[in-house]
Amino acid sequence: MNYYKSTGMDLTYREILKWGDKREEGVDPHMMKLIREKFGLTDADFREKHLPGSQPVKLDKPSLLKPGQLIFLKSIAGSENILTDDFSRAKYSYGKFYAELLDLRLNLVPDPPDAVVSPRNHDDIVRIVEFCNEERIPIIPVGGQSSVTGALRAPNGGIALDMTKYLNKIVRLNTVNKTVTVQAGMSGPAFEEELNRHGYTCGHFPQSFEYSTVGGWIAARGAGQASTGYGKIEDMVVALKVVTPAGVIETKEFPRTAQGWDIFRVFIGSEGTLGIITEATLNMHIYRPQNTASASFIFRSFEQAVEAMRKMIQSEYGKPHLFRISDPDETDIAFRTSGFDNTFSDKLLKMLGFMPGKRCLMFVTVEGEKDYAKFVMGKIKHTAGKGKGMYIGRSPVRKWLEQRYTSAYMRDPLMDMGIMADTLETAVTWESLLRLCSAAQAYVRKRPRAFMMIYISHVYENGANLYFTFLTPMEKGNEMKDFTAFHRGLVDTILENGGSISHHHGVGRVLAPWMEGHLGKTSMAALGAVKRHFDPNNIMNPGGTLGLQ
Amino acid sequence: MNYYKSTGMDLTYREILKWGDKREEGVDPHMMKLIREKFGLTDADFREKHLPGSQPVKLDKPSLLKPGQLIFLKSIAGSENILTDDFSRAKYSYGKFYAELLDLRLNLVPDPPDAVVSPRNHDDIVRIVEFCNEERIPIIPVGGQSSVTGALRAPNGGIALDMTKYLNKIVRLNTVNKTVTVQAGMSGPAFEEELNRHGYTCGHFPQSFEYSTVGGWIAARGAGQASTGYGKIEDMVVALKVVTPAGVIETKEFPRTAQGWDIFRVFIGSEGTLGIITEATLNMHIYRPQNTASASFIFRSFEQAVEAMRKMIQSEYGKPHLFRISDPDETDIAFRTSGFDNTFSDKLLKMLGFMPGKRCLMFVTVEGEKDYAKFVMGKIKHTAGKGKGMYIGRSPVRKWLEQRYTSAYMRDPLMDMGIMADTLETAVTWESLLRLCSAAQAYVRKRPRAFMMIYISHVYENGANLYFTFLTPMEKGNEMKDFTAFHRGLVDTILENGGSISHHHGVGRVLAPWMEGHLGKTSMAALGAVKRHFDPNNIMNPGGTLGLQ
Repeated sequence: MNYYKSTGMDLTYREILKWGDKREEGVDPHMMKLIREKFGLTDADFREKHLPGSQPVKLDKPSLLKPGQLIFLKSIAGSENILTDDFSRAKYSYGKFYAELLDLRLNLVPDPPDAVVSPRNHDDIVRIVEFCNEERIPIIPVGGQSSVTGALRAPNGGIALDMTKYLNKIVRLNTVNKTVTVQAGMSGPAFEEELNRHGYTCGHFPQSFEYSTVGGWIAARGAGQASTGYGKIEDMVVALKVVTPAGVIETKEFPRTAQGWDIFRVFIGSEGTLGIITEATLNMHIYRPQNTASASFIFRSFEQAVEAMRKMIQSEYGKPHLFRISDPDETDIAFRTSGFDNTFSDKLLKMLGFMPGKRCLMFVTVEGEKDYAKFVMGKIKHTAGKGKGMYIGRSPVRKWLEQRYTSAYMRDPLMDMGIMADTLETAVTWESLLRLCSAAQAYVRKRPRAFMMIYISHVYENGANLYFTFLTPMEKGNEMKDFTAFHRGLVDTILENGGSISHHHGVGRVLAPWMEGHLGKTSMAALGAVKRHFDPNNIMNPGGTLGLQ
Repeated sequence: MNYYKSTGMDLTYREILKWGDKREEGVDPHMMKLIREKFGLTDADFREKHLPGSQPVKLDKPSLLKPGQLIFLKSIAGSENILTDDFSRAKYSYGKFYAELLDLRLNLVPDPPDAVVSPRNHDDIVRIVEFCNEERIPIIPVGGQSSVTGALRAPNGGIALDMTKYLNKIVRLNTVNKTVTVQAGMSGPAFEEELNRHGYTCGHFPQSFEYSTVGGWIAARGAGQASTGYGKIEDMVVALKVVTPAGVIETKEFPRTAQGWDIFRVFIGSEGTLGIITEATLNMHIYRPQNTASASFIFRSFEQAVEAMRKMIQSEYGKPHLFRISDPDETDIAFRTSGFDNTFSDKLLKMLGFMPGKRCLMFVTVEGEKDYAKFVMGKIKHTAGKGKGMYIGRSPVRKWLEQRYTSAYMRDPLMDMGIMADTLETAVTWESLLRLCSAAQAYVRKRPRAFMMIYISHVYENGANLYFTFLTPMEKGNEMKDFTAFHRGLVDTILENGGSISHHHGVGRVLAPWMEGHLGKTSMAALGAVKRHFDPNNIMNPGGTLGLQ
C-alpha cells in the first residue's frame, strides 16, 4: 500500500524535506539582498539548487516486521491503516531538524521505521502497545512532524504510530470548568478553529503551530508565542490519558492536588519515551481578539530593553501575552526586510540616538478582558518610557503577527542556496541572560561569514527564553560534519553560560548527549528509573531520545 | 540528654498536644454559647477537662538504636544534637491530626522514633542518609510539626530528623531574579520577616503558617491563604536541593525548561518518602501591604456566591489573591461570633433578602502594584454586583485577616470540652462543587448533634478547594473508634462526589488507604517505582506514608 500513490506526487526525498506550504517558495527580496551582502554571494552561487534531494526515495533497509506481526497489526488497526512502502517509512521518520533536512538532501534515510500504523482509537493503541511490548517492536508516536530534535527517527526500526489520521477530534468542551478534552492527534489549526467557533481559544501558538498536534505540544513540552500570558503547555494540561507498556494512566481533572506528586506530569516532556498520550484536558481561554492591546517599542540598546522587560514582568501589575525583544542583529534585519531602513522615520530615530547595530525592538500584546488589556498595556507603556524606550505604534507588532509562522518556511530555499540556517533556544535567568547572549554571539562571530539573530520570548519573573537563529554558507562537500561541529559548539556555549538544554523545543536525539552532563548523574538515573518502570522492554521511542538508554 | 529538661516545663502528654500558643487558652464566648445551644450542653459538661493527657510521658518502647549506631550518629551531628529521652521521642512523632491529639489525651504514643537528630548542615544530612541507608534506619524529616496527616509517626522507629534547629536561614536573596534560596528548616514567620526587611514577601501563608517550615510547605504540597493570586507552593518552587539514598539532587534555577520532565518536581508532595529537602529556591514578591485592596460581599445563596466566584476567576481581568466564600453554616457562625447577629445592619440585610441559613460571605483581597489591585478590585465588585452580591465593606475581611491563623488553636479547648473538631479539604472542579458540598453536608447531618462549616478558598479557573470543619460531641469512652468511622465516611463521601484526596494538607498515613483506589493501580505502581528508585531500602518515612509500601 502507498498512502501517497494516489496523489500522483513526486516521491522524492525533496518531497519529504519540504513543508508543502506555498510560503516556502521564495525568500523575501530584502532578505536575499542582505544574504548576498553578508556572505559575498553572487548570481553564480544561485544558479542551481544545492543538494536538492531530487532522487526518488529508495530504502536499502527492508521492513523487518515478520509477516505474522504485520497480519496481527492489520487485524488490530485495519489493513488500510498500515503502510510499508519506502516513501511512507521514510517520510514518517523525519522532523524538521536541519541535519535531517540535510540527510534528505543527501538522499539518505538512516533510520526508517518498518511500518506506519494509523490507529483508529484509544483501544487500538492499547492493543498495539500490548502487542508491540510482547514482540519487542519499537513504537514512535508521530504527530505534526515539526520536531527539530530528531525525535521521530527509528534507529531500532519498529512502527511509526501516526496519531493524526483518526485521533483528531475534540472529545468534550466543558464551558463550566473552562476546559477542553481533545485527542492527541488533533492539529493546532483544526483545534483552534473549532474552539474559536465556540468562543474559546487554546492560547497555545508555537512557531510550528500550522504543522503541530496537541499531543506533540505535550510530549515535547512546547511553548506558544503568547506563553508569557497563557503559560507553557505544562501550565495548561489538567489531565491526561496515556497508554504505556505498564498500563493505561487516566487522570481526573482537578484544579490542583496534594496527593503525592502528579505522576501524569512525567508524560509532559516525555517525547514518546514512556507511552502514547491519547487524550488531554487543557484549560482554555475566552476568544476575543478584538480586545487585544498591541504595542511596539524601540530601545537604544539591548541592555536597556532587557532591563525594561524585566521591570515589566516583575512589577506585579498583570502580564503581557506576547512579549518579545529582538536583539540588535534581528532588529536591523527587521528594519531592512520591512523596507523601513533609511526612510524619513528611520532618520528621525537615528537622530534620537536609536542607532543601527544597537537599537532593539520590543513587541507586546495583552489579551483578555478589554479593560484589563488596556490597563496592563498602559502600565507597560509607562514602564517602557521610564526605561528610555520609545513607543512606535501598533503596526510593527501587528505586521509581525501576520507573518508569525512563516520564518520557518524560509529555511528550505536558503538551503537550496547552500546556506546553513538553524535555530537553538534556551531558558536562562535574568542574572545570566546578557552574559549568555554575548558569549553566543562571540562564538558565532568566530566563524567567517556567519551571523546570528537572537530574540527573547516566553518571559517569566525570574528569567526568559532566548532564541537563536544562525545563518552561514555551508561548507560544500562537508555539509554535515561542518554543521555538527558548529552546532555542538553553540550548544556547549549556551550550557557553559547558564542556559538550559531547551525551553520548548525538547531534547530528542539531537540534544540527548548533553543530558547527563547538564542534569547530573543522580537526576539522569531517576529519569531512567521512570523510563524502566513504564517501558521495561524499551519499546517506546528507543535509541537515545532524552539521553535514555 | 533532654532538650526540654532545662526549660522546667511539665513533661506530660498534654505538653505535646498543645500548640504552646496563648491564643489556645480559651474559646470565644459567642462560640461557647453556640456550642451549648447546638449540642445541648450544660455547665456540668464543662466542669472538668475531658481526657486532659496530664500524665507524664513514659514510653514503653525503648530506643532500638544500637550503641554503635548512636555513637556514629553523634560523631556526625555532635552529641548535643541527638535526643533519646522519652519526651523528645514522643514529641517529634506528633503532628496535629485530631486522632494524634486523641492518642496523646489517652496517654498513648504508639509510634515514637528511636532518637531525634538535629543535623547542622546539608553535609551532615548527606552522611546521616548514607549511614541510615546502610544500617536500614528509618528517617522521618520533621519541620514545624503542624502536619494533619500522621506524616511524622515512626511506626518502624528510626530517627526523627529535626530540620529546624540549624537549617533555618536564607542562603541567598536574588533581587535580579526575584528569587530566594532558603534552607528547608526555616520557619514561616522567620522567613517572611526577613524577606519583609528586604522589601519582599513569600506570598505563602498556610493556616499553619506560624508553626510551619519551608521544607514542610514543599514536602506536603501546601497552599497559602493568598494562593489564588500567588499560587500553591509547587507554583513557587524553581529549584531544589534534596538528599536521597540514591544521591543528591541539586537543580539549577531556570524559569522553565523542556529537558524531559523535571524530576525535582516529584519531591514536591513527597512527604519525606523519597529524600530530605535541604534547600529550595522560590519566587518571591514585592512586599507592599499598603496596596492591598480588600472587599467583603454577601450573597443570598451559596449557589449565587459560587457562580459569581467562578465568573470572577474565569473573566481574565486579573485575579484576587485571597479569595474565599463561607457557606451558610460558616457565615451564620461568623455573624454570631462577631456580634453582628441581630444588629440593626443585620436586620437591614434580612429585609433585603440575605437570610440566615442561606446567605454567604465572600472575602477578596487583591495585592500587587497599587493601580492593579484597585483595577482588579473594581472588576470584582462589578461582577459581584451583576451576580446579585452586595458589597459590605472592607472591615469583615480585614477582621478575618487579623485572626487568620487562630481558628486552629481553638481545637484543644474544644477537645477539653469533649468535642470532636476536625477538618478535611479537597479540590474539585466547578462542575462537581455544589454536588460535593451537598453530599458532604448531608453526610454530617445524618449524625445527631453534628454540624459542619464549609468554605471555598484557593480558586482556579477550572475549580476550587473546599474546606470542611466539623464539630460534634465525642462518644465518650469510644472516642477513637467513633472518630475514625465518622472521618472515614466523610472522606468516602468526598471522593465519591468528585473530590481529590487532598488539595493542600497532603496524604500522610491518614489518607493513605484511599490512594490506590483513587489514583488507580497504574498510577500507584508508578509512584512506587519512583519511591524504590530513590529509596530502595525503604528508610525514608516508611510505614505507609502516601500509601507506599
